[in-house]
Amino acid sequence: MDAIRFDMPLEEALTTQRAVRRLKPDPVDDALVLRLVELALKAPTGSNAQSWEWVVVKDRAVKAQLARRNRQAWSIYGWLGRRATRGDAKMQRLLDAVQWQAEHFEEVPVVVVACLRGVRPVFPPVAATSYYGSIFPSVQNLLLAARAAGLGAALITLPLWSTFSVRRILGLPWNVTPCAVIPLGWPVGKYGPTTRRPVGDVVSLDRYGNKPWKGRAAAGIA
Amino acid sequence: MDAIRFDMPLEEALTTQRAVRRLKPDPVDDALVLRLVELALKAPTGSNAQSWEWVVVKDRAVKAQLARRNRQAWSIYGWLGRRATRGDAKMQRLLDAVQWQAEHFEEVPVVVVACLRGVRPVFPPVAATSYYGSIFPSVQNLLLAARAAGLGAALITLPLWSTFSVRRILGLPWNVTPCAVIPLGWPVGKYGPTTRRPVGDVVSLDRYGNKPWKGRAAAGIA
Repeated sequence: MDAIRFDMPLEEALTTQRAVRRLKPDPVDDALVLRLVELALKAPTGSNAQSWEWVVVKDRAVKAQLARRNRQAWSIYGWLGRRATRGDAKMQRLLDAVQWQAEHFEEVPVVVVACLRGVRPVFPPVAATSYYGSIFPSVQNLLLAARAAGLGAALITLPLWSTFSVRRILGLPWNVTPCAVIPLGWPVGKYGPTTRRPVGDVVSLDRYGNKPWKGRAAAGIA
Repeated sequence: MDAIRFDMPLEEALTTQRAVRRLKPDPVDDALVLRLVELALKAPTGSNAQSWEWVVVKDRAVKAQLARRNRQAWSIYGWLGRRATRGDAKMQRLLDAVQWQAEHFEEVPVVVVACLRGVRPVFPPVAATSYYGSIFPSVQNLLLAARAAGLGAALITLPLWSTFSVRRILGLPWNVTPCAVIPLGWPVGKYGPTTRRPVGDVVSLDRYGNKPWKGRAAAGIA
């Protein structure tokens, strides 16, 4: 197999990455999946510990068990979400895609589960943020690399509502925590730009609430 | 000011991004910093809530207060780290850089603090991972964009050891949690490739511990 390259300009990858949930059942090459994880490993980790573990799930029986957990969480979350966003067409479309994913989870060709070794601290807050800060930068690398490769991907956590159950399904030891699930496959639809509030609305200068750039995009700031 | 572009190929940005801690005191344009945050906002968030808040610290007095918190944590962490890695030249060099940063924190031109609105759940684990999973993908976008712009950056959490204190310094409300600190500036040294274990060592297939690609890089898998 030829070397896989990800030559898309960074800005294009960043600005067109989005959750792609409707995926074809067509297989994805192992080498491509491994390369995505390899690029994920380039992300920073606290104290450079690199204490991650990645489980690539292709076996349909294992996917079916994760799918069941996902549907259980979706049956509550989806109902709440539909109610809370009634009349919001954009959010209803997002929930349609999440529902599609829940219904077709077993058919997704590859499901990547990103895990962390080591005890998950709940206190102080800085310990928890350092812990999760050692896995989500790498998950984002994986999502960006998937986008550049034209693979559909999304970051989800619903299947993890019972870490006890997911540990049993994947054979994870007690001290390995599943943190994120990324279903991967060739997309039915396509990637495209996302919409966000103006950056000036969420940026304070020096002190929270001091928003000199309110309502403005970066391009408008000289 | 001309539009700032980040045309570096994604693969180059991913593979050469690393913590750059020795920074020049030279100023960094506000427009560039805002564009980095704007690209950070393109990352996914749980339920697309986008409940982040970013504080860009340029005021020397505020930086000095964060610097003090950072040095307090470093005085313990650095001592432990030096002891634990005695004889490991690579880790000692890493700690040298962290120490340099602790000593020069006030001189860093821009310190970005990434925060999340909403109550930080400690249980169940899936709630905590969804929470932090809504800020660290965006932090990674910011680090990659900084790399493409040639700006030095690093993801640190030491200054946050007392969230109480950081809330007071930055005027954050009780329900806004500081999650990550990113000192930004033009680098004294340069970016370069990082080393990682072979991807096959950290990837299991279908079940934890089943490692068919052990010892292999993605390039060796057909």
